[in-house]
Amino acid sequence: MAALTKNDIKITRTESSKISSIDFNNLAFGQVFSDHMLICDYKNGKWHTPEIVPYSPITLDPSAKIFHYGQSIFEGMKAYKDDKEDVFMFRPMDNVRRLNVSAKRLSIPELPEAYFMEGLKALLEVEKDWIPTAEGSSLYIRPFIFASGKGFHASPADEYKFIICAAPSGAYFSGKVNVLIEETYSRSANGGVGFAKAGGNYAGQFYPTQLAKAKGYQQVIWTDDTTHEFIEEAGAMNVFIRINDTLLTSPVSDRILDGITRKSILQLAEAEGLKTDVRKVKVSELVEASRNGSLKEMFGAGTAAVISPISGFGFRGEDFIIPEQDASFASKLKNRIVAIQTNKVEDPFGWRVKL
Amino acid sequence: MAALTKNDIKITRTESSKISSIDFNNLAFGQVFSDHMLICDYKNGKWHTPEIVPYSPITLDPSAKIFHYGQSIFEGMKAYKDDKEDVFMFRPMDNVRRLNVSAKRLSIPELPEAYFMEGLKALLEVEKDWIPTAEGSSLYIRPFIFASGKGFHASPADEYKFIICAAPSGAYFSGKVNVLIEETYSRSANGGVGFAKAGGNYAGQFYPTQLAKAKGYQQVIWTDDTTHEFIEEAGAMNVFIRINDTLLTSPVSDRILDGITRKSILQLAEAEGLKTDVRKVKVSELVEASRNGSLKEMFGAGTAAVISPISGFGFRGEDFIIPEQDASFASKLKNRIVAIQTNKVEDPFGWRVKL
Repeated sequence: MAALTKNDIKITRTESSKISSIDFNNLAFGQVFSDHMLICDYKNGKWHTPEIVPYSPITLDPSAKIFHYGQSIFEGMKAYKDDKEDVFMFRPMDNVRRLNVSAKRLSIPELPEAYFMEGLKALLEVEKDWIPTAEGSSLYIRPFIFASGKGFHASPADEYKFIICAAPSGAYFSGKVNVLIEETYSRSANGGVGFAKAGGNYAGQFYPTQLAKAKGYQQVIWTDDTTHEFIEEAGAMNVFIRINDTLLTSPVSDRILDGITRKSILQLAEAEGLKTDVRKVKVSELVEASRNGSLKEMFGAGTAAVISPISGFGFRGEDFIIPEQDASFASKLKNRIVAIQTNKVEDPFGWRVKL
Repeated sequence: MAALTKNDIKITRTESSKISSIDFNNLAFGQVFSDHMLICDYKNGKWHTPEIVPYSPITLDPSAKIFHYGQSIFEGMKAYKDDKEDVFMFRPMDNVRRLNVSAKRLSIPELPEAYFMEGLKALLEVEKDWIPTAEGSSLYIRPFIFASGKGFHASPADEYKFIICAAPSGAYFSGKVNVLIEETYSRSANGGVGFAKAGGNYAGQFYPTQLAKAKGYQQVIWTDDTTHEFIEEAGAMNVFIRINDTLLTSPVSDRILDGITRKSILQLAEAEGLKTDVRKVKVSELVEASRNGSLKEMFGAGTAAVISPISGFGFRGEDFIIPEQDASFASKLKNRIVAIQTNKVEDPFGWRVKL
């Protein structure tokens, strides 16, 4: 099963590419999709050989468990192309491993790693021309698995679909982000599914985020659901806080996603000689640091936004502004990580994987 | 919009009913589906007129947000038929109100109540012959809404589908249920979506439930995620505990579903002169009551299983047996509630709604 190679993957090409209709210099995030997708079915107790087919609608029974019981997981990754038209992925093995961590927690059958990796490579070869090269853009890749099996019994499905789609994309956020520290709503429970990239983790964030948006914030910073004293993550991003010259971020837990950008930043910062400290950070410490001027920076980190600088935060009706920094850690780290991703500099970490 | 009546609903009948292929005396739960379904689309900022169509597959873009962000909610209800072929629903307005409570929390546009009620009535008229009459069986009805709108941005969809399907069903559980009191995994967070019937709440329970099943239990009893000291619910059911002659159940909260069967049982018990107490119940109190013999009964309550007696519970490696009771509260209450649902006795509460 795991012995699958790229050549085992049957490719059916579209008869009418829509690529000429796309303005690659004005891309939103995840709104247009490339011509093909990888699809792979789990049925009769096993994952079947993936195929590449034209990007096309999915047909499901109304009783498919995805509609009723939220059994779905996903990953987010990006592919880049350099001047020589060589294609690069960023730490793809970390995505497949995390997908299977999520799968286990959501009672979804784990996917053989080769199905993911060989499928991804085959898809990228077919979709090479869809990788944008304008600064800040990339081919956003969305591997996902959902329960397609039928029935209203509240139990795991007997059939699943693994799909990889790709969307040439621009920036996730335009400009800096103003965040609200949330004390009423929560993202995840102790012993829950917060560490997994499960669909349901995202839907639950929409309403509190809409409330925050109505108050002028773009994102919510989640705190722990027990005390609301500790900073957790930003829902679609992990959170970093620079106090004086130390870069802080919360340890991962069963409530916090083990972000690939997060861990890359930690490695990179250490290699650059920046001081890092992975520990729980109290909201009160953040507020105090802002008041006494030791709060220098705050930023979100995730695949979609890479590093997204935070301009300020709201807490209990008060707004805290984070002053602009010369030579910020955020811009330094972002430039370095993007340069590695796009093959502009050496990659001493072995993160970049050439197609 | 809310002025919609049953006659506005266009009905397209199937050309080939599958009803003759169904063995109505041997029905599983939620495995076979009736010939038609109600479908209603939200697009361009509003819910459009529902239609009844043959039960048929749903076609969605691979980027539909249901696959990625778990934006889905549902309800569970049952329809019954009496000797005179009259059809009855049980507290249907409570379902539509709760659906809209769930909708708000999941950032799904609320559904006009008339769309639900008139749609449901129209569907039941078409599907009358699908209502089984064998003891313990009923037509299980599944109204649900999910995000059909496209795009990988983690934000609410711009399009949704509201569907009602029906499945002639037998019992959800066969026999008594043995439960495990869970202290590692949790169902919901303070400030989370546990009170909503959101798809994601169910997927997160599958893995811990599988672990419990491997140890010989059929269901998990969830405790609060902060201390694991308090009994919350059984995932697909609310939990009742009889200590001596008092029937205890946890108050609803942002973590616990406001079950329609739960509140019906409370009303019924009071009307029958049984002592009820809605308060938080400690696991230690349950264990102590079991040891000293004051624990008389324990049962789950929900639409699918109505009342499901619990034969015992496991806690920290120890198994506690709940002895059989003569004239149990569970059987008394279940018989009464089912008699009301099926039009066998008076309904002093006004719960039963005739089609």
